Amino acid sequence: MADKQSVEESLEFIPKFNDDGLIPAIAQDVGTGQILMTAFMNKQALAKTIETGYAHYYSRTRKKLWKKGEQSGHFQKVERILIDCDQDFLVLKVTVDAGQCHVGYDSCFYRALKKNSDKQLEFIAEKTYDPKKTYKK
Amino acid sequence: MADKQSVEESLEFIPKFNDDGLIPAIAQDVGTGQILMTAFMNKQALAKTIETGYAHYYSRTRKKLWKKGEQSGHFQKVERILIDCDQDFLVLKVTVDAGQCHVGYDSCFYRALKKNSDKQLEFIAEKTYDPKKTYKK
Repeated sequence: MADKQSVEESLEFIPKFNDDGLIPAIAQDVGTGQILMTAFMNKQALAKTIETGYAHYYSRTRKKLWKKGEQSGHFQKVERILIDCDQDFLVLKVTVDAGQCHVGYDSCFYRALKKNSDKQLEFIAEKTYDPKKTYKK
Repeated sequence: MADKQSVEESLEFIPKFNDDGLIPAIAQDVGTGQILMTAFMNKQALAKTIETGYAHYYSRTRKKLWKKGEQSGHFQKVERILIDCDQDFLVLKVTVDAGQCHVGYDSCFYRALKKNSDKQLEFIAEKTYDPKKTYKK
């Protein structure tokens, strides 16, 4: 196990995978700064992402590696991979062509908590594509 | 357990805490879009954040609720709380006064993987304050 200082101050890439062998990743639009989605990577997904330049994740529900966009066609071209101080969180700076959320929005973060409420959300975006037409299954 | 459609399409705020009772949160500068840090919230931390308008998190190492900035003075004023499609990830749009990373940088994401490497990082930011002077303990 690497000590705290070498994790924080060094230039060695030593991503910390959790007990399930996963590290969370945030996909952020490199142009606009919008946070598009979050997902998990296992070692293989991270390696594939670095190797191909396109974001790959690990699906916890389907228990398999997937390439973002393999069904929707909405790939994420990875421009840069950032890691945080304790190396247990990744940010992918990505270029995308279209909506990144399977619900039909550009970003998965299409709702915000209403002011002065702890229960009520409001939409802060509009759908930009029809997922029924995009996703074949 | 709420069904998938009501989680994704409804305006009911039903954040999904994991088996440890935590939900991950990304703090993003509301002005610049820079991702500053990530941390976890338990129910109490989220309630405190909503109630006070300042980010509170749950420390997994110290096993306690903490208000971001309680030691450093670098608080996060929360302008908006966003939640993703499956309601298991939060984004806090925050206003901050100064460096947000305990290592001394504005953001915890101060390193990026070098082009054509899977092992070597490079610094992409400079320290903006001296954590030794800021953190009393």
